[in-house]
Amino acid sequence: MNEQRQIKPYVIGLDLGGTNSVFGIVDARGEIKATTAIKTGGFKSAEDYVKASVEALQPIIDQVGGIEKIKAMGIGAPNANYYKGTIEYAPNLPWAHDGIVPLADMFSKQLGDIPVAMTNDANAAALGEMVYGVARGMKNFIVITLGTGVGSGIVVNGQLLYGSDGFAGELGHVTMVRGADGRSCGCGRKGCLEAYCSATGVARTAREMLASTTRPSVLRDMNPEDITSLDVSIAAGKGDELANEIYEFTGHMLGEACADFTAFSSPEAYIFFGGMVKAGELIMKPIREGYDAHVMPIFRGKAQFLVSGLDGASAAVLGASAVGWEI
Amino acid sequence: MNEQRQIKPYVIGLDLGGTNSVFGIVDARGEIKATTAIKTGGFKSAEDYVKASVEALQPIIDQVGGIEKIKAMGIGAPNANYYKGTIEYAPNLPWAHDGIVPLADMFSKQLGDIPVAMTNDANAAALGEMVYGVARGMKNFIVITLGTGVGSGIVVNGQLLYGSDGFAGELGHVTMVRGADGRSCGCGRKGCLEAYCSATGVARTAREMLASTTRPSVLRDMNPEDITSLDVSIAAGKGDELANEIYEFTGHMLGEACADFTAFSSPEAYIFFGGMVKAGELIMKPIREGYDAHVMPIFRGKAQFLVSGLDGASAAVLGASAVGWEI
Repeated sequence: MNEQRQIKPYVIGLDLGGTNSVFGIVDARGEIKATTAIKTGGFKSAEDYVKASVEALQPIIDQVGGIEKIKAMGIGAPNANYYKGTIEYAPNLPWAHDGIVPLADMFSKQLGDIPVAMTNDANAAALGEMVYGVARGMKNFIVITLGTGVGSGIVVNGQLLYGSDGFAGELGHVTMVRGADGRSCGCGRKGCLEAYCSATGVARTAREMLASTTRPSVLRDMNPEDITSLDVSIAAGKGDELANEIYEFTGHMLGEACADFTAFSSPEAYIFFGGMVKAGELIMKPIREGYDAHVMPIFRGKAQFLVSGLDGASAAVLGASAVGWEI
Repeated sequence: MNEQRQIKPYVIGLDLGGTNSVFGIVDARGEIKATTAIKTGGFKSAEDYVKASVEALQPIIDQVGGIEKIKAMGIGAPNANYYKGTIEYAPNLPWAHDGIVPLADMFSKQLGDIPVAMTNDANAAALGEMVYGVARGMKNFIVITLGTGVGSGIVVNGQLLYGSDGFAGELGHVTMVRGADGRSCGCGRKGCLEAYCSATGVARTAREMLASTTRPSVLRDMNPEDITSLDVSIAAGKGDELANEIYEFTGHMLGEACADFTAFSSPEAYIFFGGMVKAGELIMKPIREGYDAHVMPIFRGKAQFLVSGLDGASAAVLGASAVGWEI
């Protein structure tokens, strides 16, 4: 691999989001050598999207010495099927919402037949941590992404866990509250971890706690519908007791969920990633406490709880590029 | 490997249980060529246990052509650490209950330095299914053993999942009933799958249902403390409604747990193993129903629910021998 990295020292990473598509040309140490971006939407077909992407890429490819310097391309995208290199029925992508788009092949054909691999955002984040981040040298760890949803990338025996169909690692959708009392989740079921511990779940917890008590909180100055997890974080940072309890509830549930994940794969670390992690110990402390209170005795004290070491702005592109190095 | 199998066509399998230690010499097709057994307990030290084992083994090793025909030895044992080849603090083994016994090395030294590997019973069962059973050709599946406890062996990417410490795959200890209402489990926590869905869990469900209702059942003819899962199975087989409900409750919870496991590793099959599986559709039907009702939509209809294909009497020895083939 080292020799190949010298001959073809770069990979292209594409963070394909609902709004923006960000491209980076990345070297083996995780340095982003050049970057560009286009809007993801606004194309009638996947062909048009790929054409516009390649047009945007050409100048930065030339900048690093041409396509012969590029080993591969990695894509992190919603609803990506790693085994097939396809995006399947992605509700937020106008050119991929009602079918299966063989995006990896399409990019490969337009880029001199370089290998192209694709995975979902959370798996890309996990590879990014393994190749460039805090998981370097680890063979068993789980990345949990806390954003609009709760995503996960699971690494076992040094390999990303894709399962039989390419869709393994949906830990945001394990059931935390069973039965009719569980909150409705976007996946159509009830009580999922994501319904409680995503950014939107935290905002929902805030609204529920404000409505069910008369306790004072600076959050009462806001229209309940406008409260976001960032508002809760700011209020908690100022010492607001109710806001602190919201984070304790959220972190404790995350820790309890991790205790179950440990019974599955006994990772050496959990790595948390995403906007909510900026709350720091406000969220990490109750995660550890929830975990310690619930994990099976034989696993106690073994797993580390870490925060992503990747720079937020470039993390998604780095993660995507890591998919390219793994080909 | 094929060539090696011709030169050294056999492995020794040892099913090391709390009461009996059963040895088999097994060929690559899973045929047990010779077998012997000793009592597991009754030895003052691990050295004495190994000495007695090797004395019992010698005649059957001679029978297949001597130690030079043996490629390796595999051991399925409680509290086995695969990475270290040790048995650690096994409460039911008098010569291993208060320390760490390097059993793999000890056997290797007494058996002409053949490689010896060790794993726990449920992992051995999973390897047995992969090498000789219904999981031949599968790369992602989960074996769930329903016995006195609930054990599991998880295979991902064609490899047994050992995790960072060698103890991964404790799916009997995911939490199914959260909070103070959960049943106490042998592991010291509350609400574990094992506390409900093991044979002892089924008997406990029976006692609870008999005590909380006045509904008729043939189980009322028994002393509640004497009821076993086999009694429930026999009663259900005779059409006893309450007994049927006990199996429905048990199977439904197992299916619900499997729905969470699928969010983790998306296996192509769940394979159930152990005494309780003899109840057949009485337990398998509610498992499938509980799973279908709770699994995330993208996974629906993908996983198979199978019953172990290994003969009950020899399954544990075959599983242990499979550990030997995997070295």
